[in-house]
Amino acid sequence: MRLSRWFTPSTTASAHCDLPCGVYDPAQARIEAESIKAIIAKVEGNDDPDFRTRAIVIKEQRSELVKHHLWVLWTDYFKAPHFEKYPQLHTLFNEATKLAGATGTKGALDAKVADQLLEKIDQIAEIFAETKKA
Amino acid sequence: MRLSRWFTPSTTASAHCDLPCGVYDPAQARIEAESIKAIIAKVEGNDDPDFRTRAIVIKEQRSELVKHHLWVLWTDYFKAPHFEKYPQLHTLFNEATKLAGATGTKGALDAKVADQLLEKIDQIAEIFAETKKA
Amino acid sequence: MRLSRWFTPSTTASAHCDLPCGVYDPAQARIEAESIKAIIAKVEGNDDPDFRTRAIVIKEQRSELVKHHLWVLWTDYFKAPHFEKYPQLHTLFNEATKLAGATGTKGALDAKVADQLLEKIDQIAEIFAETKKA
Amino acid sequence: MRLSRWFTPSTTASAHCDLPCGVYDPAQARIEAESIKAIIAKVEGNDDPDFRTRAIVIKEQRSELVKHHLWVLWTDYFKAPHFEKYPQLHTLFNEATKLAGATGTKGALDAKVADQLLEKIDQIAEIFAETKKA
Amino acid sequence: MRLSRWFTPSTTASAHCDLPCGVYDPAQARIEAESIKAIIAKVEGNDDPDFRTRAIVIKEQRSELVKHHLWVLWTDYFKAPHFEKYPQLHTLFNEATKLAGATGTKGALDAKVADQLLEKIDQIAEIFAETKKA
Amino acid sequence: MRLSRWFTPSTTASAHCDLPCGVYDPAQARIEAESIKAIIAKVEGNDDPDFRTRAIVIKEQRSELVKHHLWVLWTDYFKAPHFEKYPQLHTLFNEATKLAGATGTKGALDAKVADQLLEKIDQIAEIFAETKKA
Repeated sequence: MRLSRWFTPSTTASAHCDLPCGVYDPAQARIEAESIKAIIAKVEGNDDPDFRTRAIVIKEQRSELVKHHLWVLWTDYFKAPHFEKYPQLHTLFNEATKLAGATGTKGALDAKVADQLLEKIDQIAEIFAETKKA
Repeated sequence: MRLSRWFTPSTTASAHCDLPCGVYDPAQARIEAESIKAIIAKVEGNDDPDFRTRAIVIKEQRSELVKHHLWVLWTDYFKAPHFEKYPQLHTLFNEATKLAGATGTKGALDAKVADQLLEKIDQIAEIFAETKKA
Repeated sequence: MRLSRWFTPSTTASAHCDLPCGVYDPAQARIEAESIKAIIAKVEGNDDPDFRTRAIVIKEQRSELVKHHLWVLWTDYFKAPHFEKYPQLHTLFNEATKLAGATGTKGALDAKVADQLLEKIDQIAEIFAETKKA
Repeated sequence: MRLSRWFTPSTTASAHCDLPCGVYDPAQARIEAESIKAIIAKVEGNDDPDFRTRAIVIKEQRSELVKHHLWVLWTDYFKAPHFEKYPQLHTLFNEATKLAGATGTKGALDAKVADQLLEKIDQIAEIFAETKKA
Repeated sequence: MRLSRWFTPSTTASAHCDLPCGVYDPAQARIEAESIKAIIAKVEGNDDPDFRTRAIVIKEQRSELVKHHLWVLWTDYFKAPHFEKYPQLHTLFNEATKLAGATGTKGALDAKVADQLLEKIDQIAEIFAETKKA
Repeated sequence: MRLSRWFTPSTTASAHCDLPCGVYDPAQARIEAESIKAIIAKVEGNDDPDFRTRAIVIKEQRSELVKHHLWVLWTDYFKAPHFEKYPQLHTLFNEATKLAGATGTKGALDAKVADQLLEKIDQIAEIFAETKKA
């Protein structure tokens, strides 16, 4: 199914909605993290200083969006019972959001840092998927 | 694979990046459209006028995000050869963005309108998937 | 000193800076929480439905700002050693940000909820002050 | 009349309103494009690298605003009958918004590119004026 | 010339640029004020409470934009010699921005208030035009 | 009292609320100005050009926030009787907001300029405190 990559009929997707609309998806954070990784790769292959400036500006914005999408999952989606069942969850979110900040993807044009961020997001997505099944 | 719904290793995902980072995904638009649909459903089951006010405010924001994500695909992802190969593409995007505006999901709390919007996004995603394979 | 309420010469204040500039202050979150409390009081004394609509819109925005300022403290200011020394800190932040969301000040025009939010922020500020002295 | 440059009593002007308020004006896009041209000129006459950084940051923002104002005209103002009467309109808007993006004024500090963008906006304004008379 | 309403070749237009790009235009503020007036008219002719809610939300945003565009002119365009030559200018700007706030177009759905705001903007535009000629 | 630096029980704090919520505080502007000063200090001690780029981007944003918080005090808090009692107030605000713009903290990485801005904010805060006592 060519659409399977993007969504299934029973998609629960995220929005920073907080009505609450009950619709969340770690894909929002991951998509921005993938953009950061792509930005870093583009800069690797381009020695124009103006391009580098733009890349830094845009990477700052995408990193901020990663932080935001993760914060929303941490506050709006996950509930007290989740934090009891997954005691590592607070630390995981704290480390992930730090990895999208000054000591992470904001502060460097380093593909390894982007990969660390993606790895943390995948760990969050794994727990998210388990809670959806429960 | 429990993560398959959200992403595969070779994800190309979207961001309003415009570096360009080369990373796009109709899921960003669809996720917001799903939120709109969920908001409408929540209002159906809640007769508190303050809740309705909040729902209208939030629906306005999500609708605007749908418009934005679609506009970005139309301008930043799709190129002239695509528009030649898919002559219906301009109209499809124009109708989809109208469906997320005042004459669409902004202007009504109507599940059918949300479904029409989702249908248009799915059509866009179908063409998007074809261009990725090409 | 008439300026003492607002600042002292050695102020460390907050910004969502993430350079990092090293400047943080729970006052940013508290100021917005105080606004929410004031909005609720204003609505109590005004039965104009248009005023109520505006109040709900603005309360939504201030609540979002409270969440943002708190998230920034949690991710950008507090470090791993802090979370070890204050094991209640994650939960405190999670509960505070929930209190500024749909199940808190966003979802109701209730002064008691605003007070609960202010109480949580004060608890955070107390720990923050201790870490500054340390 | 010294005010004629800016407005006439029967001005219909634009806002990204989408109520709809029925008020649109290509001047919003043009004004931002003129700013971009002015920014490029300022950089030509200033070899301070910090100034260049700021110029790139601000040019990115103005370019984004051009894209937004044009997208709003394309989706909110122009209707199906317009696209029938002016079959070049979709392409004109698509090219204009591309010219305000990474392959246009965002990606370069080139006065010729800014002029191309202004030229496209003028073409849109011409059709807009005709539809107002109709 | 059908384009004369919108722009002349030697347009100086505004942006909140602050590079400085040297390009300013009271039309940006007036365009939003016209939108406010149009919103109020639309509400007059529509008794749907959901439409009224949306109108209030959008009027709040357009009013905020009026305030912003005027503040930018007051701080970024007008200089000390202007304030000496036009001693009424500070008060004019202060009253205009108040008219776009809670005690003005934000706080009411009143066409007379919108007209007062437009009148103030016209007075500012008149002085602006004189400074351009000087 | 370790919390005294940040707030007292009878805090009136600021928000860009404009309901009006009646809650204002020059601390919001000062906090951002302090961030600017900290950013400049950080750049002094760091010769990485990418860090400098990020610092310029973030300084631009904090400066804009200073302008905004000051404009809100000038328009929403201070009333006509205040401007009569303190005839220097308009000029003080105009100079302060200019100091946070292109000819001030936006246009330079100069600690002296940041100090001038902080000095202006302190003068505003002094008058603000007097009006609160009156």
